[in-house]
Amino acid sequence: MRTYLDCYPCFLRQALDAARHAQVDEAMQRHVLLQVMEIFPTFDLQTSPPEIGAYIHRLIRLELDNPDPYRGTKERSTAEALALYPRLKKRIASSANRLDTAVRLAIAGNIIDLGVSQTYDLWDVVERMLTQEFAIDSRTAFRTALSAARSVLYLADNAGETVFDRLLIETLELPVTYVVKGSPVLNDATLEDARAAGLDQVATLLTNGADIPGTILAKTSAEFQERYAEAELIIAKGQGNYETLSGSCNPKLFYLLQVKCPVIARDLGVQVGAMILKQAERVSE
Amino acid sequence: MRTYLDCYPCFLRQALDAARHAQVDEAMQRHVLLQVMEIFPTFDLQTSPPEIGAYIHRLIRLELDNPDPYRGTKERSTAEALALYPRLKKRIASSANRLDTAVRLAIAGNIIDLGVSQTYDLWDVVERMLTQEFAIDSRTAFRTALSAARSVLYLADNAGETVFDRLLIETLELPVTYVVKGSPVLNDATLEDARAAGLDQVATLLTNGADIPGTILAKTSAEFQERYAEAELIIAKGQGNYETLSGSCNPKLFYLLQVKCPVIARDLGVQVGAMILKQAERVSE
Repeated sequence: MRTYLDCYPCFLRQALDAARHAQVDEAMQRHVLLQVMEIFPTFDLQTSPPEIGAYIHRLIRLELDNPDPYRGTKERSTAEALALYPRLKKRIASSANRLDTAVRLAIAGNIIDLGVSQTYDLWDVVERMLTQEFAIDSRTAFRTALSAARSVLYLADNAGETVFDRLLIETLELPVTYVVKGSPVLNDATLEDARAAGLDQVATLLTNGADIPGTILAKTSAEFQERYAEAELIIAKGQGNYETLSGSCNPKLFYLLQVKCPVIARDLGVQVGAMILKQAERVSE
Repeated sequence: MRTYLDCYPCFLRQALDAARHAQVDEAMQRHVLLQVMEIFPTFDLQTSPPEIGAYIHRLIRLELDNPDPYRGTKERSTAEALALYPRLKKRIASSANRLDTAVRLAIAGNIIDLGVSQTYDLWDVVERMLTQEFAIDSRTAFRTALSAARSVLYLADNAGETVFDRLLIETLELPVTYVVKGSPVLNDATLEDARAAGLDQVATLLTNGADIPGTILAKTSAEFQERYAEAELIIAKGQGNYETLSGSCNPKLFYLLQVKCPVIARDLGVQVGAMILKQAERVSE
């Protein structure tokens, strides 16, 4: 998906958020914003928002002299989600359709996205997603693909959301490789964040070698590219993975996300707030 | 009120909106955004957002080579509000407390603010404002001041909102001077916009001589400054007038507005969506 000018103010808000998550003073926050604005002339609207986001967040980390401005925030998100884990686990266990409930919870966890501007109560979102209708619903194709697959490649999104992914993985009853970012970007999960959420207990962890808040295959490691090419079923969580992989023409690929931004909503033809389980098209979208 | 860094992404969004209201293509919209970003390093956070906004919108008009990018939008806003005028007029006439209803409608009209990011249904807002509680409520002081005043100085805000101001003015039963901006800025009302809404039939029109989306006294005309100093009662509509006049220590001044931005909400100690009729304090706020 290409970038739209609507993303420009949003990039600036993300830069401000990042500086604030790193707890620097207002003068430093302002400095970061001004530095980020200097690279806007270099942005190509034909690239995806996460590719541009990667440049912005690299500059932010450099200016803040902080390799992971969201470190504290990510730890809090993981702790908050882990505190809900027992309740969520029971909810799935007592459910008539465990897979459906686990899918809904995995999408509910996608609310933990600091790339977008929002406030939310995590449990409220869980309750809403348990009953909300899917705006795009490939659940039947997903169930069919799951029953045929011998393993799953799971592309993670954000720290904290990892705990919700863990619940889905525990429900899948298939070997899962859980793919995180190679190094910190935004609040995206890294190896450290995945381990803190206990994903190492339920999946094989792998990094994609990149620091992009999405998955741009050409910029990932050779090992990841090989695993991606061989995968029988791929779950891609969140907006960033949708923005970078949409148009892949790979029906093994299923996007699970909440739509939190109007640009992506328009691209998908749905409303902000929509719940999506979408199989990638065989032909160019 | 000073500017906060939260205003920076919002300034950029306003610039994009302005370019789109002027109906230029994406390349030109991008050009405008990049030009606007170049002047951010000159902004002083101790000045008010409308003062910075004025610089930004001057640059936008220059780059677009368009003295009034919101011209068409303002005309549509006025036409939309005029279409509601008969229904609104009846609503006041049939009301047990005509002044209270007219004040509520004048605040409802303040939703027509293209400086903020929002979508709304005008009549829905009217219905909501007719019953919503005031978050800050100086209605008693306002009624007292009205009964003592021999005339009112009314500082207008946006085109279209003008129609709602007209309804309040028709209810006041006092001579009113209706003050608009000296030249176009954002969707703020100018003489032309006020006349289109029929304000010349119910008030004496005056411009403040400035192109700032608020009222910075030092930058207004000598004539306006004189009228402001002599006024017995001043109604200041909207966020821009609040942002620029807050801290005036002038109890003749009453702010009527809807709070549409989180920065102003925090400054006033209320929630976004709040309905405000606030008498300015005698001492520094």
